[in-house]
Amino acid sequence: MQDQHPNISVIGGGSWATAIVKILTENLPKITWYMRNEESIAHIKSQQHNPNYLSSVEFEVEQLDLTNNINYAIQKADIVIFVVPSAFLTAELSSLTVALDDKIVFSAIKGIVPESYLIVGEHFNEKYNVPFENIGVITGPCHAEEVALERLSYLTIASATEAHALLISKYMSSEYIKCKVTEDVIGTEYAAVLKNIYAIAAGIAHGLGYGDNFQSVLMSNSIREMKRFIKKRYKMKRNINDSAYLGDLLVTGYSVFSRNRFFGNMIGKGYTVRSAQMEMNMIAEGYYAVKSAYKINEDSGKRKTKTPIINAVHKVLYEGKNPRKVFTKLADKLD
Amino acid sequence: MQDQHPNISVIGGGSWATAIVKILTENLPKITWYMRNEESIAHIKSQQHNPNYLSSVEFEVEQLDLTNNINYAIQKADIVIFVVPSAFLTAELSSLTVALDDKIVFSAIKGIVPESYLIVGEHFNEKYNVPFENIGVITGPCHAEEVALERLSYLTIASATEAHALLISKYMSSEYIKCKVTEDVIGTEYAAVLKNIYAIAAGIAHGLGYGDNFQSVLMSNSIREMKRFIKKRYKMKRNINDSAYLGDLLVTGYSVFSRNRFFGNMIGKGYTVRSAQMEMNMIAEGYYAVKSAYKINEDSGKRKTKTPIINAVHKVLYEGKNPRKVFTKLADKLD
Repeated sequence: MQDQHPNISVIGGGSWATAIVKILTENLPKITWYMRNEESIAHIKSQQHNPNYLSSVEFEVEQLDLTNNINYAIQKADIVIFVVPSAFLTAELSSLTVALDDKIVFSAIKGIVPESYLIVGEHFNEKYNVPFENIGVITGPCHAEEVALERLSYLTIASATEAHALLISKYMSSEYIKCKVTEDVIGTEYAAVLKNIYAIAAGIAHGLGYGDNFQSVLMSNSIREMKRFIKKRYKMKRNINDSAYLGDLLVTGYSVFSRNRFFGNMIGKGYTVRSAQMEMNMIAEGYYAVKSAYKINEDSGKRKTKTPIINAVHKVLYEGKNPRKVFTKLADKLD
Repeated sequence: MQDQHPNISVIGGGSWATAIVKILTENLPKITWYMRNEESIAHIKSQQHNPNYLSSVEFEVEQLDLTNNINYAIQKADIVIFVVPSAFLTAELSSLTVALDDKIVFSAIKGIVPESYLIVGEHFNEKYNVPFENIGVITGPCHAEEVALERLSYLTIASATEAHALLISKYMSSEYIKCKVTEDVIGTEYAAVLKNIYAIAAGIAHGLGYGDNFQSVLMSNSIREMKRFIKKRYKMKRNINDSAYLGDLLVTGYSVFSRNRFFGNMIGKGYTVRSAQMEMNMIAEGYYAVKSAYKINEDSGKRKTKTPIINAVHKVLYEGKNPRKVFTKLADKLD
């Protein structure tokens, strides 16, 4: 511990990681921040901002213990916050030589680990022996871009251990961030994953020329599908209309900032998956998420549920099906 | 009856009335269409389109039995569809000399009658002795403007008498309209009313500079508030995330077409209520709805529920309170 504060290390150099570090600097004198890219670290040290993401955010460099050594960052931490794209998590952790199992681990990743088909919390539990009670989730609805602008945003902090959730909540609350805590680690993480798939669906529909009326029906069906899917993964009393579920779906499905919606829109407009990916400078998490979510549902036997929207996005992105035909059929299943 | 078809009369000359007539022309050889304005009737007859609303929609004039005599329109009808602003309903009906109590009456009004503080279905039941089983509701999510463009849209048709709902559903379904039926006359009508209030709230927030993150939290809280409110009015098994409730909220709260959101946005930007109303060419139903919904809740004794968003909009529109201060307090109540 550093004075009375816990040592918090943030793992990742993207826009959401940058936003989380900014949020923490409001309350902590020092944050350890790991990113792979040495040039970015040098740039932040000399120019006070991340050159690639949220570059309008100015940091006090003395508040940052920047490192590109993941072992240093993790060893130093009481609490580790992972914020790397789920597709890169395994690669990032491949150089890990220090133990994770005595850390409090929070995920702000919003993805399924492609190698294990597990959400990040489950992955840390199964592959790194982090006890489930030490695992948590930080979720929105929260676009990093609006954190940069200090626009009022609400986070949900999930942990089976309420004290951990309250601790993170304390260090992330500020004039522009309000935090809520919940025990629903599995549900909030799945919601964060699934909403990216529904945002791709919204983008495809928009690209195909469907309008606002259809979009609202699509979102109404998406939240019902999300509820069914999550209930099959982990049954507990949750209100699917809370911000962490419905709010997160809406901010992603409707926002101009959404990478997933943008990606879907290009597909709807006729780009191939490959060319849409190449046009984009950032990862659309939903591209990986739909593969995993589809497989998880298909493989879950009796717990399989109706997921027409996930299935439609899977058909377009992984089965080479024509988006217009797929969405014409999907439209018949919505109500 | 005209051949095998029922005689349907549409009462109203605005954009939603025009859209409903267009929808019906896909399936019916003739529709009786009442509007007050004689010049509009003459214009439609000579130019094939409504001069003031959805003027891109071309009608086959021989399909329209246009009249500015409300008694003629109602006498001729088996089914009457009312689509006038709720604030004008009493005035429109003041010249009524023929009976309504033997008609099937559908409301597509989406408002509370200011004189009676009743939703339209209840108003027809209490004031015009229309039996409850002959009353129905036509609701979205459906912006009239997208009907004009023939963009795929979904309607919900509510009636305690399923056969009536199915009949309307049959005549309103087409390539670009899908219909769903429900028994929830009270709930769907209240949803259609309340969503306009939440759209005003969304507009005020936007006008004040709140961003997409906040908007998603506001909508998440709005649907929970709507659920509580409607449950207190009429308890039955309903999924508040169905299109008629959540979908309708979203299309209005997010769409650029929404008059209510636009009205709220002007208020948030600093217009007075009066100047915002004068700037607008159309009625923002939510302005009347919030007065009624607030009173209904306040007066409902034990059935009163927490409605922080309705209360906030009421404070801004009717109690002369400063929008910024009201929304700063509201933000603390959201989660």
